[in-house]
Amino acid sequence: MDFTPKKRLSLDQYLNGIKNGDKIILSQAITLAESALASDRKMADELIVHLLSGTGNSMRIGITGIPGVGKSTFIETLGKHITSEGFKLAVLAVDPTSTKTKGSILGDKTRMESLANNPDAFIRPSPTKESLGGVSINTRETVLLCEAAGYNVIFIETVGVGQSEVMVKEMVDFFLLLMLAGAGDELQGIKKGIMEMADAVLITKADGDNIKRTQQAQSQFQSALHLFAPSSAGWIPKVLTCSSLNDEGLTEIWELIGEFQQTMKKTGYFEENRKLQKVNWLHHEIKSRLESNFYNHPLTSKNLAAIEKKVISGEISANQAAQKLLSAINHEK
Amino acid sequence: MDFTPKKRLSLDQYLNGIKNGDKIILSQAITLAESALASDRKMADELIVHLLSGTGNSMRIGITGIPGVGKSTFIETLGKHITSEGFKLAVLAVDPTSTKTKGSILGDKTRMESLANNPDAFIRPSPTKESLGGVSINTRETVLLCEAAGYNVIFIETVGVGQSEVMVKEMVDFFLLLMLAGAGDELQGIKKGIMEMADAVLITKADGDNIKRTQQAQSQFQSALHLFAPSSAGWIPKVLTCSSLNDEGLTEIWELIGEFQQTMKKTGYFEENRKLQKVNWLHHEIKSRLESNFYNHPLTSKNLAAIEKKVISGEISANQAAQKLLSAINHEK
Repeated sequence: MDFTPKKRLSLDQYLNGIKNGDKIILSQAITLAESALASDRKMADELIVHLLSGTGNSMRIGITGIPGVGKSTFIETLGKHITSEGFKLAVLAVDPTSTKTKGSILGDKTRMESLANNPDAFIRPSPTKESLGGVSINTRETVLLCEAAGYNVIFIETVGVGQSEVMVKEMVDFFLLLMLAGAGDELQGIKKGIMEMADAVLITKADGDNIKRTQQAQSQFQSALHLFAPSSAGWIPKVLTCSSLNDEGLTEIWELIGEFQQTMKKTGYFEENRKLQKVNWLHHEIKSRLESNFYNHPLTSKNLAAIEKKVISGEISANQAAQKLLSAINHEK
Repeated sequence: MDFTPKKRLSLDQYLNGIKNGDKIILSQAITLAESALASDRKMADELIVHLLSGTGNSMRIGITGIPGVGKSTFIETLGKHITSEGFKLAVLAVDPTSTKTKGSILGDKTRMESLANNPDAFIRPSPTKESLGGVSINTRETVLLCEAAGYNVIFIETVGVGQSEVMVKEMVDFFLLLMLAGAGDELQGIKKGIMEMADAVLITKADGDNIKRTQQAQSQFQSALHLFAPSSAGWIPKVLTCSSLNDEGLTEIWELIGEFQQTMKKTGYFEENRKLQKVNWLHHEIKSRLESNFYNHPLTSKNLAAIEKKVISGEISANQAAQKLLSAINHEK
């Protein structure tokens, strides 16, 4: 952990800055919420509590797809449409780091140049380090902070590698899967779990001599999606095509999202889903705190290394060891 | 949870049965270890402790690949080779259930008919329900039970959907990825995280008019694997091809696994990896117990519903709510 003192604002400075839509202060508040320092976390918690009544008024949209599918270009082009219609857009990234290399997959966001210079858009690159409790919890807080700052459309971008999609699905209203034409059956097999979560599939790069393949893929995916049971909300996922290059199909996907939102609000599913997500967040937060309380406990620091050694040597089982460590703390209280 | 009384053996009956290699008693002991009942868990813990010194003497091999890649046929054919060489083989499955449908992906194991009737093979189908703490913990215990029963080769089978691979990688000595020829760049993009974990890639169905494509895929995957940094053990993953149908390439993959084992034992990495895995298991077990202690606590049962309501209504934040629930328990002690 990094214990170098950081420049922090006062609670009031954060509150006023966010309410006034100050992008720099919003960025600093997100950094605060991403921090692992106890003092930062405490202030971030307070900040969220004070802003809570001004949150929730956005359309939260998850966008996923494998590297190369064209997520950045799509987000740039759609972002231009949305902001020109008067919406304020925040683009966040959930970046699952590679298990082995711990490297960043999404990389920096400098590639979204035109959005970065758009006064009605706010782009937040991925958190650079894994904090206790995981990226997802920070992203939930970031969503609330952006909403409090007046952003009414939130994009949460991730790559199609499995676990991060589940996280993102749990914090958005609409989940959009970007796919390429020309992917075989094998690909569809892998993506099944992710396709099941999608509210719409968008086939990108429908331009030049790729148009025909895109149309074929569209009907293939549409039939594939029919294999799944309709979602509890009764929404049947749609498959659309687009060309970010030629700016085609962007209006259609935005209209579809609007249609989804209207329908879901009418049936009450929109609110139901938000409620469920809040409860899920609570349980993520509980688990995160249970772990951090345990691992930061002085008795754990004192006993852990010796007990790990016994587990390694085969003197005791992992289960016995866990039992010992936990009862040490429970008896002390 | 199912509270109907179950027929259980005594500790001694389990111990003797397992030490004598009795498949039926081994199965019953695994069922005990998979149970969520506190009394079952306690006995399973004791059983493991008593058997601990007789465990660890196997080659643990993870086998993954998307549905349709031919895992069952491969396991059947390789299993026949291995058992004819005098090894005793246990085949276990880690079955990640679909997030939405909760359906089983791997299905039942009746398809491995010849292995099922092989006296030197033991096939354990996937656990049928998710238990607190997850499938992975049960599978670790199942591995130990099988080893204590004399099985010296363990296959842990899973499907290529992301999270389960990480789990399996954490409990095996060798991780084998089965792939099909003809998969495009898109597929490789998705599989990158899993390919990074593989000690070998095996391209299946190298028969008939598929042979040329398999060879092309072999050289493609071999170059792709060179893009990754060599593993900490210094092993460079190999790419092989096989035809389970024509029984070709099976000897080669088994020899490669043998070569890996020898090399890793010489460098000490084999033992290092096992040690690391034991420590990981301890930490999984700690997390699982922290959660189950919290959620089974009477004060949690008493307070949770009311606090969830406040989170839903936006009266308090998820973080405040978690704080309240945890301090209730801590103050009571």
